[in-house]
Amino acid sequence: MHRDALVELLGRVASGELSPAAAVESFAHLPFRAGPGLLLDTHRAMRTGEAEAVFCQGKTPAQAAAAFAALAESGGPVLATRATPEHLEAICRAVPRAQAHPEARMAVLAGQTPRCGSMAVVCAGTSDLPVAEEAAVTAEALGAETLRLCDVGVAGLHRLLAHLEVLRQAEVIVAVAGMEGALPSVIAGLVGAPVIAVPTSVGYGAAFGGLAPLLAMLNSCAPGVSVVNIDNGFGAALVAVRVLRSRTRGGASVR
Amino acid sequence: MHRDALVELLGRVASGELSPAAAVESFAHLPFRAGPGLLLDTHRAMRTGEAEAVFCQGKTPAQAAAAFAALAESGGPVLATRATPEHLEAICRAVPRAQAHPEARMAVLAGQTPRCGSMAVVCAGTSDLPVAEEAAVTAEALGAETLRLCDVGVAGLHRLLAHLEVLRQAEVIVAVAGMEGALPSVIAGLVGAPVIAVPTSVGYGAAFGGLAPLLAMLNSCAPGVSVVNIDNGFGAALVAVRVLRSRTRGGASVR
Amino acid sequence: MHRDALVELLGRVASGELSPAAAVESFAHLPFRAGPGLLLDTHRAMRTGEAEAVFCQGKTPAQAAAAFAALAESGGPVLATRATPEHLEAICRAVPRAQAHPEARMAVLAGQTPRCGSMAVVCAGTSDLPVAEEAAVTAEALGAETLRLCDVGVAGLHRLLAHLEVLRQAEVIVAVAGMEGALPSVIAGLVGAPVIAVPTSVGYGAAFGGLAPLLAMLNSCAPGVSVVNIDNGFGAALVAVRVLRSRTRGGASVR
Amino acid sequence: MHRDALVELLGRVASGELSPAAAVESFAHLPFRAGPGLLLDTHRAMRTGEAEAVFCQGKTPAQAAAAFAALAESGGPVLATRATPEHLEAICRAVPRAQAHPEARMAVLAGQTPRCGSMAVVCAGTSDLPVAEEAAVTAEALGAETLRLCDVGVAGLHRLLAHLEVLRQAEVIVAVAGMEGALPSVIAGLVGAPVIAVPTSVGYGAAFGGLAPLLAMLNSCAPGVSVVNIDNGFGAALVAVRVLRSRTRGGASVR
Amino acid sequence: MHRDALVELLGRVASGELSPAAAVESFAHLPFRAGPGLLLDTHRAMRTGEAEAVFCQGKTPAQAAAAFAALAESGGPVLATRATPEHLEAICRAVPRAQAHPEARMAVLAGQTPRCGSMAVVCAGTSDLPVAEEAAVTAEALGAETLRLCDVGVAGLHRLLAHLEVLRQAEVIVAVAGMEGALPSVIAGLVGAPVIAVPTSVGYGAAFGGLAPLLAMLNSCAPGVSVVNIDNGFGAALVAVRVLRSRTRGGASVR
Amino acid sequence: MHRDALVELLGRVASGELSPAAAVESFAHLPFRAGPGLLLDTHRAMRTGEAEAVFCQGKTPAQAAAAFAALAESGGPVLATRATPEHLEAICRAVPRAQAHPEARMAVLAGQTPRCGSMAVVCAGTSDLPVAEEAAVTAEALGAETLRLCDVGVAGLHRLLAHLEVLRQAEVIVAVAGMEGALPSVIAGLVGAPVIAVPTSVGYGAAFGGLAPLLAMLNSCAPGVSVVNIDNGFGAALVAVRVLRSRTRGGASVR
Amino acid sequence: MHRDALVELLGRVASGELSPAAAVESFAHLPFRAGPGLLLDTHRAMRTGEAEAVFCQGKTPAQAAAAFAALAESGGPVLATRATPEHLEAICRAVPRAQAHPEARMAVLAGQTPRCGSMAVVCAGTSDLPVAEEAAVTAEALGAETLRLCDVGVAGLHRLLAHLEVLRQAEVIVAVAGMEGALPSVIAGLVGAPVIAVPTSVGYGAAFGGLAPLLAMLNSCAPGVSVVNIDNGFGAALVAVRVLRSRTRGGASVR
Amino acid sequence: MHRDALVELLGRVASGELSPAAAVESFAHLPFRAGPGLLLDTHRAMRTGEAEAVFCQGKTPAQAAAAFAALAESGGPVLATRATPEHLEAICRAVPRAQAHPEARMAVLAGQTPRCGSMAVVCAGTSDLPVAEEAAVTAEALGAETLRLCDVGVAGLHRLLAHLEVLRQAEVIVAVAGMEGALPSVIAGLVGAPVIAVPTSVGYGAAFGGLAPLLAMLNSCAPGVSVVNIDNGFGAALVAVRVLRSRTRGGASVR
Repeated sequence: MHRDALVELLGRVASGELSPAAAVESFAHLPFRAGPGLLLDTHRAMRTGEAEAVFCQGKTPAQAAAAFAALAESGGPVLATRATPEHLEAICRAVPRAQAHPEARMAVLAGQTPRCGSMAVVCAGTSDLPVAEEAAVTAEALGAETLRLCDVGVAGLHRLLAHLEVLRQAEVIVAVAGMEGALPSVIAGLVGAPVIAVPTSVGYGAAFGGLAPLLAMLNSCAPGVSVVNIDNGFGAALVAVRVLRSRTRGGASVR
Repeated sequence: MHRDALVELLGRVASGELSPAAAVESFAHLPFRAGPGLLLDTHRAMRTGEAEAVFCQGKTPAQAAAAFAALAESGGPVLATRATPEHLEAICRAVPRAQAHPEARMAVLAGQTPRCGSMAVVCAGTSDLPVAEEAAVTAEALGAETLRLCDVGVAGLHRLLAHLEVLRQAEVIVAVAGMEGALPSVIAGLVGAPVIAVPTSVGYGAAFGGLAPLLAMLNSCAPGVSVVNIDNGFGAALVAVRVLRSRTRGGASVR
Repeated sequence: MHRDALVELLGRVASGELSPAAAVESFAHLPFRAGPGLLLDTHRAMRTGEAEAVFCQGKTPAQAAAAFAALAESGGPVLATRATPEHLEAICRAVPRAQAHPEARMAVLAGQTPRCGSMAVVCAGTSDLPVAEEAAVTAEALGAETLRLCDVGVAGLHRLLAHLEVLRQAEVIVAVAGMEGALPSVIAGLVGAPVIAVPTSVGYGAAFGGLAPLLAMLNSCAPGVSVVNIDNGFGAALVAVRVLRSRTRGGASVR
Repeated sequence: MHRDALVELLGRVASGELSPAAAVESFAHLPFRAGPGLLLDTHRAMRTGEAEAVFCQGKTPAQAAAAFAALAESGGPVLATRATPEHLEAICRAVPRAQAHPEARMAVLAGQTPRCGSMAVVCAGTSDLPVAEEAAVTAEALGAETLRLCDVGVAGLHRLLAHLEVLRQAEVIVAVAGMEGALPSVIAGLVGAPVIAVPTSVGYGAAFGGLAPLLAMLNSCAPGVSVVNIDNGFGAALVAVRVLRSRTRGGASVR
Repeated sequence: MHRDALVELLGRVASGELSPAAAVESFAHLPFRAGPGLLLDTHRAMRTGEAEAVFCQGKTPAQAAAAFAALAESGGPVLATRATPEHLEAICRAVPRAQAHPEARMAVLAGQTPRCGSMAVVCAGTSDLPVAEEAAVTAEALGAETLRLCDVGVAGLHRLLAHLEVLRQAEVIVAVAGMEGALPSVIAGLVGAPVIAVPTSVGYGAAFGGLAPLLAMLNSCAPGVSVVNIDNGFGAALVAVRVLRSRTRGGASVR
Repeated sequence: MHRDALVELLGRVASGELSPAAAVESFAHLPFRAGPGLLLDTHRAMRTGEAEAVFCQGKTPAQAAAAFAALAESGGPVLATRATPEHLEAICRAVPRAQAHPEARMAVLAGQTPRCGSMAVVCAGTSDLPVAEEAAVTAEALGAETLRLCDVGVAGLHRLLAHLEVLRQAEVIVAVAGMEGALPSVIAGLVGAPVIAVPTSVGYGAAFGGLAPLLAMLNSCAPGVSVVNIDNGFGAALVAVRVLRSRTRGGASVR
Repeated sequence: MHRDALVELLGRVASGELSPAAAVESFAHLPFRAGPGLLLDTHRAMRTGEAEAVFCQGKTPAQAAAAFAALAESGGPVLATRATPEHLEAICRAVPRAQAHPEARMAVLAGQTPRCGSMAVVCAGTSDLPVAEEAAVTAEALGAETLRLCDVGVAGLHRLLAHLEVLRQAEVIVAVAGMEGALPSVIAGLVGAPVIAVPTSVGYGAAFGGLAPLLAMLNSCAPGVSVVNIDNGFGAALVAVRVLRSRTRGGASVR
Repeated sequence: MHRDALVELLGRVASGELSPAAAVESFAHLPFRAGPGLLLDTHRAMRTGEAEAVFCQGKTPAQAAAAFAALAESGGPVLATRATPEHLEAICRAVPRAQAHPEARMAVLAGQTPRCGSMAVVCAGTSDLPVAEEAAVTAEALGAETLRLCDVGVAGLHRLLAHLEVLRQAEVIVAVAGMEGALPSVIAGLVGAPVIAVPTSVGYGAAFGGLAPLLAMLNSCAPGVSVVNIDNGFGAALVAVRVLRSRTRGGASVR
């Protein structure tokens, strides 16, 4: 496509419709249009619905609401993460169509995002819920159908095994756990889908703010586990959505 | 399917072909056949071609060759990783059909694995090559078509940008880098496929054996990056193949 | 036992009492009944009185009280840990029979727990008291008789040696210490009981939040020391109670 | 009690039955008899059969053999740990009755140790075997009956579940695992015995020499897990034996 | 030059203008005048305009204002860093000519500082702005012309590439980034000026308070990158100004 | 300049000399020519004489020599670092004009590099010499005049102070130190030039492979210190040369 | 020697001079008299004036005051450390003779302590003052004459050198520094007295709460430096006083 | 004194005996004579007999022997540390009067050092012996009388208590321990002398090369403990000797 744009631009130069100097200006203004893909890259962000997000932590409610409102003008989906109740209130006042998800510490302005497949978000304990919800709400905003399984930590395996059948139907799984972080390993040994592991900072002492489950997940003895940053439910959802879209896109782009 | 196997077994009990006691014996022998999915799990390993691998490090050439030969009896694919030239020689002598990949420190016995899609393996520097090759050879053994891009580190961005077009066609990307580990972030900002980041232990001093790129990758500011253990090219390939298979399987399993 | 259940089920299939399809359904519905022990496992939790606990940290007083009340309905013992005075007040208002132990930061609803033996809880300094009390109150709620020794740190050995006789009568010892964490080593060199070491986050600077005593305890040169997480008096008590119960149960289960 | 012994001793001096010089001798020979318990402590070591051990690492074969032979003179049991084949050969030449256990990297001179109960040693992978064997051989030398379960890592749960029934009969369990170190958590959720967790240095990269499983085990979400140093199979066995003996001794010492 | 001062002093002694005792006194009072350069060193601080700075963190507004006012008496430039709005208000009330830069968390009292060249301050994200502003405001107070580029993180390379031309004109570049800290590497691969990298504590989880970008920057694969402490925009500006002055001074001092 | 190239290209399209399609092809072939500066960037590397280097560690002598010879074909300067005597011998045999610097563990093929100024390389102890020599030899190969000061650690300040006068004449200073790493702070307090600090892995125990001096240097209380990776004398020299060239270039590029 | 005491005691029993019961009493009352030295240890604490201290951090003002008052009853000196203004107020109200030292965050009740020599407390920056004052006030309360030198950090060596003469007269030196922690090394290279180094948590970023100066001090290249915990001015003073007393006591005990 | 030298020099200028220019030259030649104490500092090293030492690690036997021989020319004492048997042989061949101490990994050339008092070197286990011997041999070479106590680790307290009387006679104590590093705390609680703690790298796993005992010692709850680097027996001896000399010197220097 960008090739077409380039051909067209050059065609206008060849036809005299555009002077070389003016063409140079358009390169200067959009300097990467001629570089392969860079412009597309900009377009891709909008096209793929990889939503812009406002990271509320460290922002005042007013700042977060302003940033959210600014992004909302370009359509959506727009996400706000790590939002306190105060942030949520300010955002929803500024953008009435936005929806608050307090348990996920998020606000979401829905957008036009195509369905992209089904995923599961699994978490070990109730304390991991905010991170798991952040992953689930993000994924849903980006078009994924999500199944939630909570409180299926490895200290009571039967809880996990009871949901094995449904778990096996997910095309990608986000597994959220703190403390010893064993859940992704156990799941990846039971199902064949890619497992995106999210360590949480739940715990104390030698959990060292999530270092313990982070290291455990990186050292998983099970195949198919990859890891994102501590407490990064948002990031895990982005990976999961890329996996689901890879599926869709794959159908088109592979020869 | 396992459901079918179970129905069939019970049918034989119902028909008197099999006594309850004999049926119990078969449960005892294969204790998880009656648990939903556990048996399939065992079967899945063979069915999906998630190959068994021999981790040669810490094994003598003879031990590695024996383990490889034992796995080879069940068909393949069989992989040996972290193999020295001595390991490779012993393995190829024990299993003549095995193929040595010294640059990947691997031996491979090809198996019947369906094609599952196309991926790219990208690495920052020539020192990262063994890890990148481990990822590529593993993925190929498991049915993926792989594109290799080497020496495209971020200190010379033009090298990476020159291959952007082909990079954008991969359905999943394995990005291998040591030192500052910035490659996956840069790639994930340019393309829409999931990026599986592999930190390497290349470097010295404050690289701390790969800790520096590991932390960098976990903190990637780009969407769609997940991370595996330091130097774990094998593990990255397993994740990538699951992503590719998710695509295929997805076509069937989503309503 | 599960074997009997399985024989019986298959017998009903063989006799035609149960169709194969219906038998499959029962497997699907109670998926783990045929897996050895998993169901029993669920029962064990109730049977052994390993109490459910509410971890109050990060919960509002109302949330903690609600969780405590919910668990209280199933009988007890029920424990709340890391409770502030506000948590305790809310819990005791919600469950009037609950007893507050502010020095242990706990609330306890006593249950029917058989006596299981005697243990000692020893701590190095007065700052370690909350953790030591958490261990002692937990153990007592679970049926252990506990002896408390406080302020017997190794900088004044005579204080510890003065209580050696009583210390030697404990069947298991929980030793709590921060700073250099030497107490468990010294005790394990003096008595023959298992010593469960609890590092505390007491201290500053190079104590690194309890890392110093944690490492010291893991490297104990004395025999018979094992370690739990920093400040985890609750966890130490659970280990101690298992040791004491092992004694009781042992009488029955060893040939 | 020691007070009575002291009164009696002094009475014999007062009565002339014992000369001051002879009394001094008894103090000299048993210098801590007047300090409460210290002497008993010395005796306990022999009485309980907490065997002396030679840590071979860093010693030449000749040094290790000499140390082993010296300890052997006092009867046994005597253990040598971290022994290379060269160490083992030198030891067995010096003390022909000693038995080599190369897979455990140990030599053992059996002694008179009473049976003390039954334990299980479980390990996640074959690479963990040397550490698991060190635990098992040590425990057996000290009078424990040991059950060994190997290669039951959490990535293939069915392997562990298949042995649940026998696992549940152990009075104490030593669980050995490297990498993500999840095995002890899973086991402690399934059985009621105390679980002594041993992290191993098996793994690479972000395993950081055993730090990953060590942290995971310290943060176990399952009740009843305590931890010893990385690769310390010997230490785990000593804890386990103390637990088993606590059972025996308990029968006598509890009122 | 100090040599001249010394010759002059001694000349006054030789001429009898100054008695040896008085000369000794002047040495005693300015004890290092005779040591080569030490006195100059004291003078240099004033001469080169390496401004004195008040680090406000941990000081009350009153304390900070008093310190600022004291330094202001010697002329300027005077800087206050890490200042809250309260600090700024107190300082500006105490020294009305001082200028507040709330976005940089700084107050500045301009001084007589010669122009010393042009630098660029580049930052990856808006959260890095306070640190980048601290660098820019400091550099400007010390005589540097500064170009600011913000929000040009590597996840959207086109933003950085769009400013390449201007970036290439800076004589020295301060590159500020948190998270994966890749910005300095990318810049140093594109331009020839020295790049002073400032890791920021922006991020969470495995960013470990700025450790991740710090390690990444220290391991930069690009030539010409050196690093200062986390969040130390002030320190980076001092290095940059020294580089610029080195240029000026160089013209004079090189033979 | 690239703007001129672009204008010229477009001019040829406008004049019909080049068809739009052919112009597109040239974009495709030289994809970054239209992106500002990227092509120049490639040229810059050659123009500025930022030499290519062969990092010998982990390469066989033959591999290192081959890499060196390949780079030598493009003229020079070419550097080999971390070279053992075996590497040096192989390189000098392959490229006879190369010069071996065993004390710096380097081989150098001199090139056409303009003089760029004078720097000092200072090191604390004789053990730091290899790293200091690596910096000095690299800088000289790139056109810098270098002064070497060795064994001037802070434990004997008079050694450093004795050379203050010459130190003050350097336009940039590379300060190399292990252990407590205080040298750069002391120097930066005495002179006005930028100080590039290189921590070394010299030391043992709590030096943690250079972590101690690395942290000390990052926390320098003196102005004007920036830091490179542990043992990275090569990298420090590249920074220093950029500073010196900034001086030269500055004369031209500042308005 | 204790043998002689024992012989004598037993002789008095044998001679009837002392009844067995009375002898037992002396054992009972001073239970460790028969263990060599333990009793003396108890007495030593009082005799040497190693004052009892109240660590206020984590205590309420009322608790701190109560503890202080309790200790005050046994005479003094009594120290309270890490006291906020609120702590100080409560303590001085409870024990009017106590003196508040807010800059040292201490309260002191003077006691009868013999003069023991002269020491210097030196600190690098004004932020280190509270820790330095804690050392100085503690030492003075225990009988040491103290010289204070502040703000003599290594970035301005002349400040330190100006006080060299007086520094050389101290019998022991406590050197307090944060950031790069180089001060103790520089001092120990200039004087012959033992230098007790106190790292402080002053700083930010890669100071990691005092880890940077701690490591620097442990790796000091200068002879005669030993280190105490981060911010532990109190502990450093106790070491210094022991050194000074060693001098006094030494006069008596060395043959 | 230096003041007198300065007065004299200036007097010669005043009297015309010395021209100002010549006086400047003498400053240039002996630059620090006028700075207070710096010259004396140089002399001090020789005067106090703080011996020069050759750190053999990383040196060839020939290099070590050459360095030792060079130092030997200035008289002695000369020490070589971390010497292998090969180092020792080369040194003793080069300097026949040198004495080898293989157990301390040292060679010593005795010098004229005055007696300076008595110290004890205590170590926890036999593996700590090389470090303890390094401390003892160093201290003896510098004039200290040393008492050695070995294998008195805290796991068998009676061994330590048995030597309490002699321990209490030492004027300063060096306590060497690996693993949990509790020995210095226990000793400092029993005696009144300063305790210099030396952590050793003995141990494995979570000992992390000596980090565990290092942290434990820094967090000692006993008064009077200061710490040197891991395995630094040499450094501990230097501190101890300074303490002993402080005693001697103190007699002269205190008013």
